[in-house]
Amino acid sequence: MNITAAYTDLYQLTMAQVYFGTKPDGRAVFDYYFRHNPFNSGYSIFAGLEDVLDILETLKFSSSDVTYLEQHGFEKDFLHYLRDFRFRGNIFSSKEGDVVFPNRPILQVEANIMEAQIIETLLLNILNFQTLIATKASRIRRSAQDGMLLDMGLRRAHATGGYYASRAAAIGGFDSTSNVKAAEDYNIPSSGTMAHSFIQSYDDELEAFRDFSKMRPKKCVFLIDTYNTLKSGLPNAITVAKEMERNGQQLLGVRLDSGDLAYLAKKTRKMLDDANLSYVKIVASNQLDEFVIKSLKEQGAPIDIFGVGTNLVTGKPDAALDGVYKLSEYNGDPRIKLSENILKVSLPSKKQVYRMLDKNGMFYGADAIALFSDDKLEQMEHPFDATKSLNLDRFDHEPLLEKVMEHGKKVNKPRSVTEIADYSKSRLEKLPEEYKRFQNPHIYKIGLSHQLKQERDKLVLKHTF
Amino acid sequence: MNITAAYTDLYQLTMAQVYFGTKPDGRAVFDYYFRHNPFNSGYSIFAGLEDVLDILETLKFSSSDVTYLEQHGFEKDFLHYLRDFRFRGNIFSSKEGDVVFPNRPILQVEANIMEAQIIETLLLNILNFQTLIATKASRIRRSAQDGMLLDMGLRRAHATGGYYASRAAAIGGFDSTSNVKAAEDYNIPSSGTMAHSFIQSYDDELEAFRDFSKMRPKKCVFLIDTYNTLKSGLPNAITVAKEMERNGQQLLGVRLDSGDLAYLAKKTRKMLDDANLSYVKIVASNQLDEFVIKSLKEQGAPIDIFGVGTNLVTGKPDAALDGVYKLSEYNGDPRIKLSENILKVSLPSKKQVYRMLDKNGMFYGADAIALFSDDKLEQMEHPFDATKSLNLDRFDHEPLLEKVMEHGKKVNKPRSVTEIADYSKSRLEKLPEEYKRFQNPHIYKIGLSHQLKQERDKLVLKHTF
Repeated sequence: MNITAAYTDLYQLTMAQVYFGTKPDGRAVFDYYFRHNPFNSGYSIFAGLEDVLDILETLKFSSSDVTYLEQHGFEKDFLHYLRDFRFRGNIFSSKEGDVVFPNRPILQVEANIMEAQIIETLLLNILNFQTLIATKASRIRRSAQDGMLLDMGLRRAHATGGYYASRAAAIGGFDSTSNVKAAEDYNIPSSGTMAHSFIQSYDDELEAFRDFSKMRPKKCVFLIDTYNTLKSGLPNAITVAKEMERNGQQLLGVRLDSGDLAYLAKKTRKMLDDANLSYVKIVASNQLDEFVIKSLKEQGAPIDIFGVGTNLVTGKPDAALDGVYKLSEYNGDPRIKLSENILKVSLPSKKQVYRMLDKNGMFYGADAIALFSDDKLEQMEHPFDATKSLNLDRFDHEPLLEKVMEHGKKVNKPRSVTEIADYSKSRLEKLPEEYKRFQNPHIYKIGLSHQLKQERDKLVLKHTF
Repeated sequence: MNITAAYTDLYQLTMAQVYFGTKPDGRAVFDYYFRHNPFNSGYSIFAGLEDVLDILETLKFSSSDVTYLEQHGFEKDFLHYLRDFRFRGNIFSSKEGDVVFPNRPILQVEANIMEAQIIETLLLNILNFQTLIATKASRIRRSAQDGMLLDMGLRRAHATGGYYASRAAAIGGFDSTSNVKAAEDYNIPSSGTMAHSFIQSYDDELEAFRDFSKMRPKKCVFLIDTYNTLKSGLPNAITVAKEMERNGQQLLGVRLDSGDLAYLAKKTRKMLDDANLSYVKIVASNQLDEFVIKSLKEQGAPIDIFGVGTNLVTGKPDAALDGVYKLSEYNGDPRIKLSENILKVSLPSKKQVYRMLDKNGMFYGADAIALFSDDKLEQMEHPFDATKSLNLDRFDHEPLLEKVMEHGKKVNKPRSVTEIADYSKSRLEKLPEEYKRFQNPHIYKIGLSHQLKQERDKLVLKHTF
């Protein structure tokens, strides 16, 4: 499946056809944001932007897409429009890899309303997923401290979504991936060990290790739990490691994939050290996530490399980021979506978001949302509680949204996954610890400029019954 | 991203290179099976097979794949092999759409060991995910009874995995999808309504409904919760429905997307009926899953069409099927993978699976796994409990695995998603109710033929320390 402009929800095309017939020149501003950090995290890592921009630059309907839509009742003139469809709008966005928070615009699309609507599904699909996985990866990175992290989730990933998961994992702090295709296309380091089947295909585990070490002396890792970790796998691995030494080679590691990983890692470390193999690393895998790794660390398990699969690439247990795309301006007029739940009321107009910095350049714990047209920012007000506000005079602040696409063309030069990962790491270092802890993290504050709040409240009143 | 043979884990290629250098003609049999039904379900729906077979028929490494692997240390002769790589093996499989259970082979690959290994990741990736989603869809189908079901999850799906989710949802019993690309390629009915942004782009909700009805009089569904469902959206929808009647048209439905759906659906039905609009259907959406829909049904909510998104396409809360791929035979010899956990010990040799039928042709509640070479099946034995067995004389039984690929070519003509969905429905009808309930479903029994059990036990002893 190639992504074409038909990678969208049918209603986008239905609505676009109505716009085409009634107001084909409408200009819209849409906000992309999410309502909750996944995993009860105190922050999220924004990911997926470069992919979205790359896709948008060349997005079009294929001729078979148009034929399909013709057979499904769309009208001649509109099909003609679709044949020539290109995204020609502007996009303002947070930097990919930045630390982001709920209920503030992460990205804004400013475009013809048909174009803005047709790309909605694609944009949400890529950004929601990669932000989910980059956030999960970032939490696992934290739990693993300075341990190496290997993404090995492709077999349990959501079909080809696994390709994007590997990219997002690298942005969130993973060192390498088993996914060859993603490693190739995104220039991510690739790594891997061996499967049980390799050992099973031999009559003898020792012989399997020997063959493997001969053909692959560098980066050689033996899987040692096929028959019995401490009684068979590890003694055989030690035997072959000693044989490798005689050839001037070093075994890279042994891998534990079942059983009590803390207990087995300690026993394994001791047996390796007793055999003067202290350079041989211990790799562990089997249903790991941030909590299991944290527990292994707390137990002092001497694991050097963690292989993480299903829980990483599926974003378990949340499995989705609740990102939405809301109309905030139409032909220059502010627009709002009401809700019984005041938290779900959208914010009108084109906006900018400012991050407050403390004296040391650390994030202060507050982002202020202002109208794009606001000329200065003196204080931010609580979105709902009229008694709460914060004077902003004493803070340095930085604008978070920058123009990344103009008239359908990317503004900046491409950023590699490595650059984005490095940027993400540097941003996370500016986030105080209390927002990063797993249990009841601090809540990062979001405030509105006085003008934005007034505009929102005016629109709420206008539409209230 | 196009799927090429590099859509695999690095270790498959590392192992294949070792095989290439040491035993390039090895023949392997691998079993695909999973260990637990997802969602505490009493059954699963097998899906993804046609996609896998289609991909395998043409799978190869691209020249950029080979260049990448060359740069990453793979050897000349092996790269030459990869350049000519094709999957030329045989596959025996359950029929796609069948009702399947844990811990028995769903599919077997019989091939050169390098080929069998290289395709493992792809095969698991597609089958695990589609089986997960088809099973979720089947449960939602059950809860919705004869209600219409619309898949609308693409925006929260795992990137392009959403494409395969829509296919699997149709197999599991969904009537249509919002996903245009999947609808086009898999010939699934497509449907959709309108977004809040459509209404927001107008100064007036009534005007928005009017424009939409004029441009799209057929299949017209109004979203009525943008400002206030009962005080604004519904009265405006009724006004336009009456205008449509004067043009000889009928409004298809109104959609509720927030608030207390049971309460709002009842109020909406009454107001529609009081306006002589009993033909107008009620569509509901907003974080639905099998449990919410069951509750809505129990409350008597008069909802005709359910739109299900995130919880369907992400397979929440499980997010993954734990399918594995284990070597069961190598060059004609049976192979086994041990585990401390007896449930995780694999079954050796090429096998067939038989389903027991009762006098009425219903599934009896037992599948028996036998050696492919077993000539008759008299009784099945409990996998671990030596005191339990079942005499099979009184049952009709059907073999479940059929050859679907021979020397890399598909054996049967392609089956459409509709055919597969119909087959799935007919199979589910043969499964007694107690296996289908959500709470503590009956456990479908799996037994082994006497010969298979003997062979497994012999191998366990051989490898026990």
